[in-house]
Amino acid sequence: MAYSGYGAAPGGYQQQDPLYGYFAAVAGQDGQITADELQRCLTQSGISGSYQPFSLDTCRLMINMLDRDMSGTLGFTEFRDLWQALSSWKNTFMSFDRDHSGTVDGHELQQAISTMGYSLSPQAMNCIMKRYSINGRIPFDEFVSCCVRLRALTDQFRRRDTTQTGNASFQYDDFIQVTMSI
Amino acid sequence: MAYSGYGAAPGGYQQQDPLYGYFAAVAGQDGQITADELQRCLTQSGISGSYQPFSLDTCRLMINMLDRDMSGTLGFTEFRDLWQALSSWKNTFMSFDRDHSGTVDGHELQQAISTMGYSLSPQAMNCIMKRYSINGRIPFDEFVSCCVRLRALTDQFRRRDTTQTGNASFQYDDFIQVTMSI
Repeated sequence: MAYSGYGAAPGGYQQQDPLYGYFAAVAGQDGQITADELQRCLTQSGISGSYQPFSLDTCRLMINMLDRDMSGTLGFTEFRDLWQALSSWKNTFMSFDRDHSGTVDGHELQQAISTMGYSLSPQAMNCIMKRYSINGRIPFDEFVSCCVRLRALTDQFRRRDTTQTGNASFQYDDFIQVTMSI
Repeated sequence: MAYSGYGAAPGGYQQQDPLYGYFAAVAGQDGQITADELQRCLTQSGISGSYQPFSLDTCRLMINMLDRDMSGTLGFTEFRDLWQALSSWKNTFMSFDRDHSGTVDGHELQQAISTMGYSLSPQAMNCIMKRYSINGRIPFDEFVSCCVRLRALTDQFRRRDTTQTGNASFQYDDFIQVTMSI
């Protein structure tokens, strides 16, 4: 029964969510997960499918992207948001990894980025391609790392682009906070 | 003899540089090194000392920081610049890693960043600390990764801070190029 009405135990709603099982298996008493717990959780959940499990570095990036309270950990609500983003990135990746090699090439990465709605110049695409490809190929883990950063940086830029003209001003300290945290 | 006069063979000057040996051992005919060649080169040179060798990701960051011609590889001149930066970061790191554990703590990272001349708010320091620490400690490889990005991002910011007032304006596409390439 989805509607538990009044008197549900605290957390009752969460416990009905199938994702909660993955989360609870690694979260301690504090109900928060750290980067290495996230790595274990995502590996156990099988969300990477036949792809390589996520590196610890990618897990740290994921936490920093969603960690609204700057605690360095994720609560269940943040974890659920992450899961949703990951599922969508996985679908995008799979649609371009047609030969199921576990990697896409630079051209496919560009198409994937466009599919996700980002409008970037060939120069920007080239920078991204160079940063995330290993011998010309981009594995799933690096693809997710790229998506995490592109999304977080775009969000941060948009918040400072108050006139919505594609132009934003940064103080040096703020620029460093935005760019060095992810 | 340091002065080879007219008629020196092309590359003669380079070949006298002791660093050239490390470089030439991995660079192919093209005289350029890729990220995995850089990793091999730095490991063989022993510049990490008793610290963990550099990860491939850190090597890619290093290349992107110095790769002026956007080739994705480093020539010898760029490699020499990198070596100089690395030596200086290693000295800074060692001076804070007093117990030779191979790691520094968050507070020591902040001191190291200040020592290098960066003036950052406690909030920015906190962002950096959270991003680069693993269970509260920062290993040498992560420290270098942090230094590479801090230096490159500060350089890029400064170039756009035309009035030198600590404020810079970015177009979205340019912002993505600067931040996603390192």
